[in-house]
Amino acid sequence: MGIVIRDTSVMTVDKENRIIENTNVYIHGNKIIHIGSEYDGFEGDIVINGKNKLLMPGLINAHTHLGMSLFRNYADDLPLFDWLSKKIWPLEAKLNKQDIYWGSLLSMAEMIETGTTSFCDMYFLMDEVVRGMEESGIRGVLTRGIIEDKNDPDSKLNDSISLYKRYDNGLDGRIKVMLAPHGVYTNSPEYLMRISDLAKELNTGIHIHLSETKQEVEDCYRQFGRSPVKHSYELGLFENHTLAAHCVHLSDEDIEILLDNNVYPVNNPGSNLKLASGFAPIDKMIKKGIKVALGTDGASSNNNLNLFKEMNLAALINKAVNLDALSVSANDAIRMATINGAYALNWVDEIGSIEVGKKADLILIDLNGINYYPRHNLESQIAYSSNGKDVHTVIIDGKIVYKDKEFTTIDIEKVKYMADCQIKDLLKR
Amino acid sequence: MGIVIRDTSVMTVDKENRIIENTNVYIHGNKIIHIGSEYDGFEGDIVINGKNKLLMPGLINAHTHLGMSLFRNYADDLPLFDWLSKKIWPLEAKLNKQDIYWGSLLSMAEMIETGTTSFCDMYFLMDEVVRGMEESGIRGVLTRGIIEDKNDPDSKLNDSISLYKRYDNGLDGRIKVMLAPHGVYTNSPEYLMRISDLAKELNTGIHIHLSETKQEVEDCYRQFGRSPVKHSYELGLFENHTLAAHCVHLSDEDIEILLDNNVYPVNNPGSNLKLASGFAPIDKMIKKGIKVALGTDGASSNNNLNLFKEMNLAALINKAVNLDALSVSANDAIRMATINGAYALNWVDEIGSIEVGKKADLILIDLNGINYYPRHNLESQIAYSSNGKDVHTVIIDGKIVYKDKEFTTIDIEKVKYMADCQIKDLLKR
Repeated sequence: MGIVIRDTSVMTVDKENRIIENTNVYIHGNKIIHIGSEYDGFEGDIVINGKNKLLMPGLINAHTHLGMSLFRNYADDLPLFDWLSKKIWPLEAKLNKQDIYWGSLLSMAEMIETGTTSFCDMYFLMDEVVRGMEESGIRGVLTRGIIEDKNDPDSKLNDSISLYKRYDNGLDGRIKVMLAPHGVYTNSPEYLMRISDLAKELNTGIHIHLSETKQEVEDCYRQFGRSPVKHSYELGLFENHTLAAHCVHLSDEDIEILLDNNVYPVNNPGSNLKLASGFAPIDKMIKKGIKVALGTDGASSNNNLNLFKEMNLAALINKAVNLDALSVSANDAIRMATINGAYALNWVDEIGSIEVGKKADLILIDLNGINYYPRHNLESQIAYSSNGKDVHTVIIDGKIVYKDKEFTTIDIEKVKYMADCQIKDLLKR
Repeated sequence: MGIVIRDTSVMTVDKENRIIENTNVYIHGNKIIHIGSEYDGFEGDIVINGKNKLLMPGLINAHTHLGMSLFRNYADDLPLFDWLSKKIWPLEAKLNKQDIYWGSLLSMAEMIETGTTSFCDMYFLMDEVVRGMEESGIRGVLTRGIIEDKNDPDSKLNDSISLYKRYDNGLDGRIKVMLAPHGVYTNSPEYLMRISDLAKELNTGIHIHLSETKQEVEDCYRQFGRSPVKHSYELGLFENHTLAAHCVHLSDEDIEILLDNNVYPVNNPGSNLKLASGFAPIDKMIKKGIKVALGTDGASSNNNLNLFKEMNLAALINKAVNLDALSVSANDAIRMATINGAYALNWVDEIGSIEVGKKADLILIDLNGINYYPRHNLESQIAYSSNGKDVHTVIIDGKIVYKDKEFTTIDIEKVKYMADCQIKDLLKR
């Protein structure tokens, strides 16, 4: 079983940022086995014409809440606290398995359609997310969000342990499971240390919201006399592989801590803008050598799960924030959405770039759109002129899940219809 | 000759911001003649099924440089002055009629494809733009950019006079002509006053770049002891109808002057970010009652001509800048791209909203995309979840120029091919 993509341009996103024009990429099983001219003896079952197209590594959405797509466009232009307390939390409390299943599947479909092949999800009822992954063929890190409940401190941890034992490395290695303390303001120091110990015991990573809002940082100083980053560090959380979503409000000391401890910040520009959280110091972190990844956050605060849009925002916003037209280049934004995401998901040996030996998580972009003319610079085209609607083919783990702009695994009309039914039903519950 | 769009949702963008579900819109000649249930005696030649679609006023790109699409993705991630002096200006000096024709037509195609039905262009060799307008069917304001040449102060003014006399109200009223002093730093006070007098003589408006960069404002203070806005005001420029592109760096006094003189600022968020110009005080201006319009600027500093992207940016950025999730709402962004653009182009009696008696400049958005599910709020869908790739049909001046995502007036493959040939040829000249 093999696939060959012929006569295409390849953006490798490898160490040298190579762009190879007019070449072929060979896939056997779930791996890339050759890039270049003819490969003797290869018998491709499937030949894809890559002319006038660009092959990129599949994008990696390093922070999202899949089930929340049911709330897309449900409550916008509201102050953050009203949004959460009056609109989102009351609905979340009523979410059932069917909601999570259809909401997550809708999110997976939107991600695949816009070139995302891996995600890191933080939510609950994760069995339903696994069902969606099995069906759609997508790759992902599952993390069950943990908000401390003093009356029942064990059940969410047990959920997480069970999730890890049942699914880590499942679906032919398409699943990883990590632990997800929601934040430093929703978990006590003692509980965070317990989660950290559990991560060590399971030998897995941590996924946490960190320094998202000014309020969170101020509260942390008031309560613990230190920033959320310092607090997490002092509690030993960063002794584990850590993905830290947001990292908007950081001191220089915080940035040093993230760097020294190999913490992977995940920038969510769309959500940080929409919820008025602020501007993360991406340029500063990248210049220090921190591998900043990219995420969409949930569809209720974005309101898309489209990493092309986030690449564009990352490359644009930082220039104006720093009054420097060289701040966060097209290449920086592309690396955030690919190889840095692979680092963040602790998956860099297998995904994030197009290199022989890596898993075949690939997307083919149709460059025929008006927005790609005239032809100049491919990286600029992706970061500044693309919009994610030109994804032509998506391959995940060596399997074609989207071809000629059609899903091969999902009945998309049913998914859209059912997601709409679920939210209507939920609003009546 | 008539068109009826049946069973559709209509976002009127009228004074009451009405959204009418499941209705019909009737067009006779180039005008909207009825909105609502059956219209006795109407014989529509063309019936468009509007189910699962949204009818909006055509978007208005109130500041752009059409010919510059040839430079899309040609020179990015450079400091502003290097970008201009080393890359853009040397090429602009060599632009010929064929370049302007194909570059402008490429821009018109991209605008139509993403729902823009009117523009305000500032460039040169405008006869070629008229040719493109005749062919594509788009509506627009033509302004020949004027940078003072002390050795030949008359020729650009004569160009403008000739442009006005030949084309104003041309192509069945699809053309307006205004005067375009490039900026206060490229024209002396005496010359600006001469242009202002000429505008009064012709009874037309002014299109100018104003307070785009900090440097421009500082230089103006140094040279004239006042801000570019105050300088323009004192010279009498604002006695004419004025569109002021950018307005990024404004004092409170500047904002009062713009308000008192009915100046129409045009926000270009993508370009202001990419060129690191800064953040315009949109929220403050809107709250004062100033009608802020929206533009893309040229494709070399954006790198698209897609107003859906600009609406999204306008609605997102201002929230983070003002640390206020209520700043610049979805509705504000939509009004910027439609009715406020009509005000800016001095065309509000005829376009910018869906109302009986107005010109039929209409776009039909296909709401079938994953990004529009589940169904909640139409304004949120447009400002936060759309990306301009879902435009299904475009009607300008009562004529269908784009239907079922296909151009009816332009040979788009030829336009893309020729634009690519022109820039390749230009780079060799």
